[in-house]
Amino acid sequence: MKISLSADVGEGFGPYRLGNDDALMPYISSANIACGMHAGDPTTMARTIALAKQHGVSIGAHPGFRDIQGFGRRHIAMPPQEIEWLVTYQIGALQSLAAGQGVNVEFVKPHGALNNIAHEDPDVANAIARGIRAADDTLIFVANCLSEMTRAGENHGLQVIHEAYADRRYASNGRLLPRSDPLAVVRDPVQAAAQVLTMLETQSLPTTDGNNLQTPIDTICFHADEPTAVDIVKHVRKKILDSGVHISEIVRNRQLSVVR
Amino acid sequence: MKISLSADVGEGFGPYRLGNDDALMPYISSANIACGMHAGDPTTMARTIALAKQHGVSIGAHPGFRDIQGFGRRHIAMPPQEIEWLVTYQIGALQSLAAGQGVNVEFVKPHGALNNIAHEDPDVANAIARGIRAADDTLIFVANCLSEMTRAGENHGLQVIHEAYADRRYASNGRLLPRSDPLAVVRDPVQAAAQVLTMLETQSLPTTDGNNLQTPIDTICFHADEPTAVDIVKHVRKKILDSGVHISEIVRNRQLSVVR
Amino acid sequence: MKISLSADVGEGFGPYRLGNDDALMPYISSANIACGMHAGDPTTMARTIALAKQHGVSIGAHPGFRDIQGFGRRHIAMPPQEIEWLVTYQIGALQSLAAGQGVNVEFVKPHGALNNIAHEDPDVANAIARGIRAADDTLIFVANCLSEMTRAGENHGLQVIHEAYADRRYASNGRLLPRSDPLAVVRDPVQAAAQVLTMLETQSLPTTDGNNLQTPIDTICFHADEPTAVDIVKHVRKKILDSGVHISEIVRNRQLSVVR
Amino acid sequence: MKISLSADVGEGFGPYRLGNDDALMPYISSANIACGMHAGDPTTMARTIALAKQHGVSIGAHPGFRDIQGFGRRHIAMPPQEIEWLVTYQIGALQSLAAGQGVNVEFVKPHGALNNIAHEDPDVANAIARGIRAADDTLIFVANCLSEMTRAGENHGLQVIHEAYADRRYASNGRLLPRSDPLAVVRDPVQAAAQVLTMLETQSLPTTDGNNLQTPIDTICFHADEPTAVDIVKHVRKKILDSGVHISEIVRNRQLSVVR
Repeated sequence: MKISLSADVGEGFGPYRLGNDDALMPYISSANIACGMHAGDPTTMARTIALAKQHGVSIGAHPGFRDIQGFGRRHIAMPPQEIEWLVTYQIGALQSLAAGQGVNVEFVKPHGALNNIAHEDPDVANAIARGIRAADDTLIFVANCLSEMTRAGENHGLQVIHEAYADRRYASNGRLLPRSDPLAVVRDPVQAAAQVLTMLETQSLPTTDGNNLQTPIDTICFHADEPTAVDIVKHVRKKILDSGVHISEIVRNRQLSVVR
Repeated sequence: MKISLSADVGEGFGPYRLGNDDALMPYISSANIACGMHAGDPTTMARTIALAKQHGVSIGAHPGFRDIQGFGRRHIAMPPQEIEWLVTYQIGALQSLAAGQGVNVEFVKPHGALNNIAHEDPDVANAIARGIRAADDTLIFVANCLSEMTRAGENHGLQVIHEAYADRRYASNGRLLPRSDPLAVVRDPVQAAAQVLTMLETQSLPTTDGNNLQTPIDTICFHADEPTAVDIVKHVRKKILDSGVHISEIVRNRQLSVVR
Repeated sequence: MKISLSADVGEGFGPYRLGNDDALMPYISSANIACGMHAGDPTTMARTIALAKQHGVSIGAHPGFRDIQGFGRRHIAMPPQEIEWLVTYQIGALQSLAAGQGVNVEFVKPHGALNNIAHEDPDVANAIARGIRAADDTLIFVANCLSEMTRAGENHGLQVIHEAYADRRYASNGRLLPRSDPLAVVRDPVQAAAQVLTMLETQSLPTTDGNNLQTPIDTICFHADEPTAVDIVKHVRKKILDSGVHISEIVRNRQLSVVR
Repeated sequence: MKISLSADVGEGFGPYRLGNDDALMPYISSANIACGMHAGDPTTMARTIALAKQHGVSIGAHPGFRDIQGFGRRHIAMPPQEIEWLVTYQIGALQSLAAGQGVNVEFVKPHGALNNIAHEDPDVANAIARGIRAADDTLIFVANCLSEMTRAGENHGLQVIHEAYADRRYASNGRLLPRSDPLAVVRDPVQAAAQVLTMLETQSLPTTDGNNLQTPIDTICFHADEPTAVDIVKHVRKKILDSGVHISEIVRNRQLSVVR
């Protein structure tokens, strides 16, 4: 058995930083890189690609709404056709910067409000899938199994893999509890590791009302901007390896390769 | 003999438009498309690609400084490394949007202040050439023959082709007269056509102090945002065809193909 | 009897223009000036203030969401407290630029999606009212009489005056028909003038389902970016004057002064 | 004898932070607040005003070029008239947000590249002075005594006061050593305090080539984004108080009032 560890990185802008990518990168196997709309700029992106390459971490595009001030966490109403182009634009920009360093972009995971909307709106989910296909139909679509994105990816012939969060808790509908809920964020490394081991053993998402939503899980995701992010990643990684599960990268050969 | 007719297009942003792309596109053979930094956004870009495709017009990336308010005409001091990434980002974004419509990006022409700086600063010119190579080393670099960009493109193994403006006048150093000069802009279709025919016959740029600077000329460029742009393009096009010269697209087969 | 004629102006950005402010300004008496968030920049604002001053047109702030690409027509979810500050910021910026030309800002009218949301959401409407008060509690709040903004303005002790559109049609709830409705926009000057005269005579908004919603009407508003905007304003103005109604500016002496 | 301690604060944007304003504010007496162009947004500004008010710290506007990505440290070529409006806009926005909290804006200090250019370009310095006057002619202009800004402020009838940096070293022309110079930044609290005491005793700027440039010094400025910023401010503050000098705010009564 194998699993990828992933995190949203490259979320700075100009002089600004969010999260400690340098500290996190040695412990993850796949990196979701912001593409200049909700965060990131060409310089930040290129440096993040270089950092991932140095650590043997595979990379994916992390497209979001154009809203630096709101960090892509505010829904911006756009027709699906425009969302498709917004996604294609960001993937292409990252692909070229990666190509310049001899790196392939392996996957795409929507960010923030774009991800949230696409979870339940099939029009947006399909627009994202079309946006991915337009850029490169061999890209993997990383999505919550229970979301409309999974269906949309499959509809459009994309490989879809499934993620679960180590540092967040789930509602009964399979969505992340909103950050306004005091239970939403897991900040304790021990609790995070316990949740992840349960997820992997049961192949399900535990919900705060006591259910387990069955789902394949291909990657465990971490939020890089939480203060305890590095501690959580290190501890979860150790416990996963102790349990005999391998850590792998997300790569496009349609099965995850064991790399560590 | 053959020549391309090109114009900067797709220079709107959100609700805004500059120039009349719909009126111009039937008369040009190659389109320089803004890539979201000095103008353009994913929606505008995708629509401009579609318009070019509809008219059989080949497309190129027209990257600029990130400065919508200044329309990329204000120099923004950046280290060459960051300029390289800025260029690669914009090319990749356009390439993916074009791929989504089955269209190839054939060439790159820097915009505004970025072009002006690169004309005489070899560090910037080489950064642009590296930025093009990183995205795709078969892309054509469109540059003024007398500029540092020509040398930079050749240094980096890129095919370089040369442009001359129908609607601007040249100074003795081979640069466009600044817009502040009353002679800078040619607004009369007859004068523009006469200048172009002289350029093609003599393969040189006529300067306002009476010289002719020898240069190969592969494409005649027009500014889409001048009020008389469409009249000028139509008249110049007619006069070129009347003179027996063919109109061709800029495409990457390393020689211009006759298409009309 | 007297009425103000107003229009949204100064809606360019950098090199871009929307609407023909030069042609419109001689015919209106009050100008809603964009403040740099959904459109406008310091240069555009200062030039628009100068143009209004030249024509004896009183000015108001036209604050919107920070979204140049979406022209403030996309709702951006923000806490009311942040909306309050967003409004105060924009008013203050315009007030200082106006002060530099010896001009007072007389009123505030929210733009686009901000106006739409505030129409029915009292939290947003009250946030706008607080944002106006914070900047200057003598400013007039221009609002649809039937909206939550009217109540919010009165709650916060602001003078509220009421507008009606000459070039748009109303739904039965007193809101503008959405632009997606084919009836939404009135493009014929004669129809626009007829609608306005009915509004003034009946002091009500005619709705497309045949009702008349009673409301005081203090200003007739025009969209400057419609192609027939100038024709409509000129014709409506003429018909209003022919009917014996005076055209006045919106000014803060708590009653509209007759100026023409 | 009395002196103000000031720092550039409120330099976050959306989710981003630069410097630790909470830790710094208790030790300074005057705050230069970013106004939304190079950093800051209405929410960040309002919160920074509240923090300053809570600590009895007087506030000033810190206007810069519109360039979040470059943090206002990149020169953007603009005509002086546009710089004037850019400055007025930012001051007005801050004034209104401050008024909403019952706080006055007392002074203006240009940021980054705008400050650097104005140091030696009288056209830019005069544009800034006019921009300040347009907003409020009782505002204090905070400038390096040896710069063109001092002359420009005096030309335009503004009160000008003079600042010196605790944490930077000066070149022989009275300008800060560029950050690329290894001597540019003082990171040791003891060295910073020693430099400040020398400045106050000699009323001059010590330069790295051994000179002392005579200048009145009204405020000692600190960079909030240096890692040792809080340590430096605390130590310098203690040493100043130990030496018998009072710490005062910058306020507009044309002499600094002793407040602590």
